[in-house]
Amino acid sequence: MKKSTTVEKIKAPELITSGWLNTPQPVTLASLRGKVVLMHAFQMLCPGCVQQGIPQTQRIFDEFDPDRVAVIGLHTVFEHHEVMGRDALEVFAYEYRLRFPIGIDKPNEQHSIPHTMMTYHMQGTPTTILVDKTGHLRLHKFGHVSDLLLGVSIGTLLAEEVSDEELAAGSTDSAGNESDTQPGCDADGCRV
Amino acid sequence: MKKSTTVEKIKAPELITSGWLNTPQPVTLASLRGKVVLMHAFQMLCPGCVQQGIPQTQRIFDEFDPDRVAVIGLHTVFEHHEVMGRDALEVFAYEYRLRFPIGIDKPNEQHSIPHTMMTYHMQGTPTTILVDKTGHLRLHKFGHVSDLLLGVSIGTLLAEEVSDEELAAGSTDSAGNESDTQPGCDADGCRV
Amino acid sequence: MKKSTTVEKIKAPELITSGWLNTPQPVTLASLRGKVVLMHAFQMLCPGCVQQGIPQTQRIFDEFDPDRVAVIGLHTVFEHHEVMGRDALEVFAYEYRLRFPIGIDKPNEQHSIPHTMMTYHMQGTPTTILVDKTGHLRLHKFGHVSDLLLGVSIGTLLAEEVSDEELAAGSTDSAGNESDTQPGCDADGCRV
Amino acid sequence: MKKSTTVEKIKAPELITSGWLNTPQPVTLASLRGKVVLMHAFQMLCPGCVQQGIPQTQRIFDEFDPDRVAVIGLHTVFEHHEVMGRDALEVFAYEYRLRFPIGIDKPNEQHSIPHTMMTYHMQGTPTTILVDKTGHLRLHKFGHVSDLLLGVSIGTLLAEEVSDEELAAGSTDSAGNESDTQPGCDADGCRV
Repeated sequence: MKKSTTVEKIKAPELITSGWLNTPQPVTLASLRGKVVLMHAFQMLCPGCVQQGIPQTQRIFDEFDPDRVAVIGLHTVFEHHEVMGRDALEVFAYEYRLRFPIGIDKPNEQHSIPHTMMTYHMQGTPTTILVDKTGHLRLHKFGHVSDLLLGVSIGTLLAEEVSDEELAAGSTDSAGNESDTQPGCDADGCRV
Repeated sequence: MKKSTTVEKIKAPELITSGWLNTPQPVTLASLRGKVVLMHAFQMLCPGCVQQGIPQTQRIFDEFDPDRVAVIGLHTVFEHHEVMGRDALEVFAYEYRLRFPIGIDKPNEQHSIPHTMMTYHMQGTPTTILVDKTGHLRLHKFGHVSDLLLGVSIGTLLAEEVSDEELAAGSTDSAGNESDTQPGCDADGCRV
Repeated sequence: MKKSTTVEKIKAPELITSGWLNTPQPVTLASLRGKVVLMHAFQMLCPGCVQQGIPQTQRIFDEFDPDRVAVIGLHTVFEHHEVMGRDALEVFAYEYRLRFPIGIDKPNEQHSIPHTMMTYHMQGTPTTILVDKTGHLRLHKFGHVSDLLLGVSIGTLLAEEVSDEELAAGSTDSAGNESDTQPGCDADGCRV
Repeated sequence: MKKSTTVEKIKAPELITSGWLNTPQPVTLASLRGKVVLMHAFQMLCPGCVQQGIPQTQRIFDEFDPDRVAVIGLHTVFEHHEVMGRDALEVFAYEYRLRFPIGIDKPNEQHSIPHTMMTYHMQGTPTTILVDKTGHLRLHKFGHVSDLLLGVSIGTLLAEEVSDEELAAGSTDSAGNESDTQPGCDADGCRV
């Protein structure tokens, strides 16, 4: 399996959101220390997200113990903002029966790309992100990730034993995946 | 195969639309006499439509000679109207690479159910409709229709030889499928 | 849809078999006049047959009225004869829960290709054959046929009205599909 | 995820085979110390094996570094022995393009169940087994295992750091999964 998708030992930047669905209060990565975090960044009108990423995320949410694996969605709208607002997202989440918490990436007044998406240098949607028990970014991948690869990565992070010091510590830096291809949507996803 | 899905010898009511995508001018059933017409009624946020009905419709549009089988979509919004307007539908059709003509069922000021949907007594989305060469309604089914059944129905209608008189004639009446179950969405589709 | 797969107005040669499963007595095409006949020629160790053709054949057997569409399998072993004998086929049919009649194409002492397969000039397995109500060969295709195309073809043949004279008549000739590619197995099937 | 499928800290019994395919010499578990071992026990005419287990095994063989994850098949024939001999298995492996080493579980003169299958108390086919770097049995499951669960289990075992003493050591005992349901084949697999 490709090692290049693993970004080691960089602290996962905190989420910057303007709202949440399916949770009484906002979720922060800081609050999830001690758990493996799967974050699925998507757009509700991105075919690759709807057909593959979102069902996979729901499946993981259904299968894992929430005390060990936290699953969150992040609605990172970087195009067609006018038809993918919170009201549309709520209908989408309702019709597709999504039950995991979904954050709305905070829109950026200067760019089409919202804040968290920019901080993480995401290349588009869907993007799959894994954060380990100590809050470090361990997987950051644009496009579809197979169940097998995602399972291996989750299993690896679950197996790591973590000391109290490690849970408390952490430097601040952001991931460095740069886009090297053209913008637009295809079968895999929508690229910035 | 169940015969009950076939409604014989009722003239298919004309479409009542407020706009079209993927065609320079509105499509009428009257203009399609001599062809078998497959009409897929859907909502862009109906999971059963997005996952099964729309890909099937695009597949049929790609496979058949347009001079023999006309394929049209009909956006029959009966819920969440505020997030499934023309602007949202255009983004949806663009992102999903839909190329067949899509009519927008004309909204009804008195009801949530739009005009064509009401005229056809559709039970929800997706609904698959087949109109024969003479403009009669021959299949009217709510929920998923297998490729095999839909193929058999199209093949049957294609095989029918039609005289000029039959092409010209036609009585006016509407189909009579009454809803016998509860409203709401499930794996199959969204019911009125 | 490609017309080239349709061989029109050639009488389907009678089956030459050495045994049958799932039927108390041998099936002949002559006994099926008045019905559309779907024949699936396969080998029990051909991956394309096992993964696609056989499930499709069972599905058609389950869905259609046997008085209108007769479904039969034909075990056309042209390679590895020693491990695909009747005893192995019986286990295969039992384990895969096949319920349609399966003829065993009669082995040929001079060739590896059995008699019916040779008479029909089949290119390999799976091969899908449709015979119309009057006993004429109407579809003869090597490799996978989609449910949609197969449905259209069955629907077309079902729609044909047939006179008693036509049911009684028929010239004798065989189909003429010649192999134009290399022998061997691939994802689609196994070629002679 | 169910913990009950994990059998911890029992040494995986050595394989007892009468032959191998796809390897110049027999494979022993002892020779694989330091690697995670995935063993897929199957029968070539078991539908659940052919449709799910074998493609999954081939996929894992293709995706993982063979120095970290060793993949082996085990042909555990417990029924219809006369049509699933070595000659038939060779044709099956050839036609399905299987490339991982496949051991033939040694037939038992007293029972229909072969030696390794009996030693492991397998309930039927397919059975998926994971052995850790120190040779201990860690997953032992009858029926289909999802890519997600299997990935998590492999990832967990890959993450374990192992000392030289642990690699050298090991007690001898066998797993204890007892069959609690009826024999026969269904969609999941074939039960003893």
